[in-house]
Amino acid sequence: MERIYTACLIIIGNEILSGRTQDSNLAFLGEKLNEIGIRMDEARVVPDIPERVMHTVNEVRSAFDYVFTTGGIGPTHDDITSQCVADSFDVPLILHPDAHKAMLSFYGQEQLTEARLRMAHVPEGAKLIENDISIAPGYQIENVFVMAGVPKIMQSMFSKLAPGLTGGKPMVSRTLTSHAKEGEIAKDLGDIQRKFPDVDVGSYPFMGRGGTGVRIVMRSTDENLLMQCEEAIDAVLNSYT
Amino acid sequence: MERIYTACLIIIGNEILSGRTQDSNLAFLGEKLNEIGIRMDEARVVPDIPERVMHTVNEVRSAFDYVFTTGGIGPTHDDITSQCVADSFDVPLILHPDAHKAMLSFYGQEQLTEARLRMAHVPEGAKLIENDISIAPGYQIENVFVMAGVPKIMQSMFSKLAPGLTGGKPMVSRTLTSHAKEGEIAKDLGDIQRKFPDVDVGSYPFMGRGGTGVRIVMRSTDENLLMQCEEAIDAVLNSYT
Repeated sequence: MERIYTACLIIIGNEILSGRTQDSNLAFLGEKLNEIGIRMDEARVVPDIPERVMHTVNEVRSAFDYVFTTGGIGPTHDDITSQCVADSFDVPLILHPDAHKAMLSFYGQEQLTEARLRMAHVPEGAKLIENDISIAPGYQIENVFVMAGVPKIMQSMFSKLAPGLTGGKPMVSRTLTSHAKEGEIAKDLGDIQRKFPDVDVGSYPFMGRGGTGVRIVMRSTDENLLMQCEEAIDAVLNSYT
Repeated sequence: MERIYTACLIIIGNEILSGRTQDSNLAFLGEKLNEIGIRMDEARVVPDIPERVMHTVNEVRSAFDYVFTTGGIGPTHDDITSQCVADSFDVPLILHPDAHKAMLSFYGQEQLTEARLRMAHVPEGAKLIENDISIAPGYQIENVFVMAGVPKIMQSMFSKLAPGLTGGKPMVSRTLTSHAKEGEIAKDLGDIQRKFPDVDVGSYPFMGRGGTGVRIVMRSTDENLLMQCEEAIDAVLNSYT
């Protein structure tokens, strides 16, 4: 039996829940993790409330192989993630010597405000994750990877940590688009899904300027099965045009 | 003490987790719910796996005032939401007479395939939510509102159900943008947050073509407090330019 590696993303931030900021980190990580054979299996968006963040970290870190968090590791009062993660692992937040050294050399003693120094604090036992944009690091503690919320910084952090992740076989996908109506092809699609239980067949209706239609997405770790499934679905779609 | 009404959104769909589709329903609902005094307090993105959806519905419907779901109510095999919601409430899925009638009149007996008829099935006791775009309805059962995943249809459903929701005072917000550095204003911001505990002060760094900076967002149900808080923050930002 093929081992499936799963991940959960915790998006920390009132600004995502209020609708003010549109998250884009989930889509990025969903794709990138799949490339290395890790399946994004759940995501949770939680507000900047310490008990809620801590509770969520604790709940998901035992349920998924990997947990990623985005947001809340800056220097301001609303950056609560690190304390929450430390509390979740029941370890103290400590000044990491390497992060301290890097920030001291970047800012100089005078500019290294107390607020900035907060960003050099990590849960005891955490391993730093650097990035190419900001001097403030993310970090890993056990299976939890704590990253910035700003997409560019998060993406850079992810590129640094990704080589250390262990995954299985990536899902490969095929997409077929058609003007067929979901309600007409549904029965045939269901039959094909039953015939190919190891292919995940998704049916996504769309409506846009080009009219309405449906996008059939097939995903599997087995290219050969995927090809057979695609042929079967292609035949169904062709019979409705 | 002011009553706070909370909501949780469950986004059902592998296509959001894989990164193939970018969700936009959370941002829409976060804003619209706030206008009627309901706070989006959590969101979860879960895969098309019946036990996972059912477990999530059960967990959150007792923890939040309102639960909204998007996705998975179409006619195809991967549309599992209604069965999951029915199971979560431990009621059967029944053919709703009004939905049946509407779909029969829209499609005619011959075009009303078994697959389409699935969309007229709702958990026993559910109340239909219509929309202006598709004949297939959403529905409400207790505090759970089940909606389509296609944004246009979801938005139309939300416009129909919104008048029936009870909320508190909406959060009003002010935003100040500055080229000040978070690490320099952090201490002052924290002091102001402590002085105005009923204002939620968020600090969001940005980087773009116009350079880097920070967006300070203040949110409160009290306009007067908000104004005072804004003046205090404005003074801080001005002292750094």
